[in-house]
Amino acid sequence: MSENKKNKRMEPSVGEFAEGIKNGNKTILAKAITLVESNSPKRYAKGREILKEVIPDCGMSLRIGITGPPGAGKSTIIEEIGLEFLSRGHKTAVLTVDPSSTLTGGSILGDKTRMERLAREEGCFIRPSPSGGTLGGVTKKSRETILLCEAAGYDIILIETVGVGQSEITVRSMVDFFALILNPGSGDELQGIKRGVMELADLIVVNKADGNNVKKAEMTKSEYSRAVHYLLPSTEGWDREVITASAIEKMGIKKIIKIAEKFRVDTKSTGIFQKRRKDQSFNWTVSIVEDFLTNSFYSNKTVQKKLEEIKKEITGGNMLPTDGAEELIKSYLKTD
Amino acid sequence: MSENKKNKRMEPSVGEFAEGIKNGNKTILAKAITLVESNSPKRYAKGREILKEVIPDCGMSLRIGITGPPGAGKSTIIEEIGLEFLSRGHKTAVLTVDPSSTLTGGSILGDKTRMERLAREEGCFIRPSPSGGTLGGVTKKSRETILLCEAAGYDIILIETVGVGQSEITVRSMVDFFALILNPGSGDELQGIKRGVMELADLIVVNKADGNNVKKAEMTKSEYSRAVHYLLPSTEGWDREVITASAIEKMGIKKIIKIAEKFRVDTKSTGIFQKRRKDQSFNWTVSIVEDFLTNSFYSNKTVQKKLEEIKKEITGGNMLPTDGAEELIKSYLKTD
Repeated sequence: MSENKKNKRMEPSVGEFAEGIKNGNKTILAKAITLVESNSPKRYAKGREILKEVIPDCGMSLRIGITGPPGAGKSTIIEEIGLEFLSRGHKTAVLTVDPSSTLTGGSILGDKTRMERLAREEGCFIRPSPSGGTLGGVTKKSRETILLCEAAGYDIILIETVGVGQSEITVRSMVDFFALILNPGSGDELQGIKRGVMELADLIVVNKADGNNVKKAEMTKSEYSRAVHYLLPSTEGWDREVITASAIEKMGIKKIIKIAEKFRVDTKSTGIFQKRRKDQSFNWTVSIVEDFLTNSFYSNKTVQKKLEEIKKEITGGNMLPTDGAEELIKSYLKTD
Repeated sequence: MSENKKNKRMEPSVGEFAEGIKNGNKTILAKAITLVESNSPKRYAKGREILKEVIPDCGMSLRIGITGPPGAGKSTIIEEIGLEFLSRGHKTAVLTVDPSSTLTGGSILGDKTRMERLAREEGCFIRPSPSGGTLGGVTKKSRETILLCEAAGYDIILIETVGVGQSEITVRSMVDFFALILNPGSGDELQGIKRGVMELADLIVVNKADGNNVKKAEMTKSEYSRAVHYLLPSTEGWDREVITASAIEKMGIKKIIKIAEKFRVDTKSTGIFQKRRKDQSFNWTVSIVEDFLTNSFYSNKTVQKKLEEIKKEITGGNMLPTDGAEELIKSYLKTD
């Protein structure tokens, strides 16, 4: 029997997958995630069949997004948060959305070996960022991965991303609660954070408030507390807090969890929580549709040929942008 | 002869329009703008023919966007800036992009009668926001209006908008220099500004620094000076300044102009100015194309029928967003 045939025969059916996931089988869960992450339409279709089977068991978790500049200690904080949730009887899944790994081949966030203690825990499931595909692709896969983890009983989903690009907007669009982790230090040093990322956050944590950094961290906290006054809340009716923490001294971890839990209670009582979930679901649909429309357009051979030529004319000032658009649309419709 | 026929015969030809615009004829310019603003495809086509004729004469102005919350004194400041530019020998056009007038029928920005002194000047052309059409529509029209004004010799284009929605992002995408006008007052009072609007600004002006407000305005300036440290520049290599001004006492007006002129010199010497113009032109094309694609989709009758049904299923948790998207796309392709 060829290796290929053997593998095929060994792979569970959709029903077996669904059953295994619901029973909390981590190996089956990991395999199902690989299916939804697959670029093969057939494999992906199977992944979606599985999702359809388990969808009634999804949605019961608290989805927490965590972002921050490289080196702010996000994974150390996530490990501590994860361990604390576990000690309270929650099953915790950790996912990463790392645009760098797909766009450059390298990775800012590294891999799961960083969270060694957490990775050893039975109640924890760690899944690093899928490699390959576009950021949009990663996005879709991450949403599906969240659902699969929920079906497997993980009631805390921690999603790590790095605050240097589009990825934090993406992650904000799939979580309930969003925290920004910062280094101690003043404004100019923090320019590495993408503009607007503060506004997405429900909580800002100045990490590394330990040793010689305690005073600096407190000052940073004060500065940010002033700065956030100018921003609208990320979540209606929720006041963004700025706190200090030290992951290595386990200081502030319980406070982060307390704030996240309060957030859930408060926003559920006002209905904001449920409304956001519904909006996120439908916005996911809309973004898939719009990606499809623009992808169809830009992958059209005639459009591709015309595009460079028209771009040259327009940026050279020889063609009106409106006329360029009309030409592109005409060539698309002709070959559609 | 019917009134209709008479009007038709009296309207200038494309060539006459182009000639009149180049000669700085304000009546002809206003009529040409009405053509590009027209919802009639035939009238609009004529407007674009005129644009094509005059395009070699476009692009030589400094395009300045001005935003701020209602009541910050934007139009008073614009009037003073306009008068100052005129006194220096510049021809100045004032345009408004007012989302409220198209979305609600009402208007936040009011009409041109607000700038009475400026409106009386020979070297000034004031054009209020077009009424009717979507915000996207207004956008396109405003870009075309800028070009027509430039062809008519206006070398300063002031574009007013109100900082409460999407419109300031739109205006930022069509100007070289963008200023935010604020009231004196602390953070909480300024929540009316859309998040992120500070980040779009190359200059922040705290207006009304007069009478009893002088101290308050200075404090506001200090607060904002601190807050902007956390933001990336709106324009590469340009440090955002925060200044105070008083339009009614004509204080700070020359400073605003000095900063805008310095901005032009600096960014032209680094090539940022030219690069932004090119990017803006091509991005205009891209946004027209993408608007067309989504409009075609959402105006499709079958899609419209399916959309509500699918939205209900998804937000009710009975359908996967991916499946909803697939169904919508299928129904679109079938009826395309």
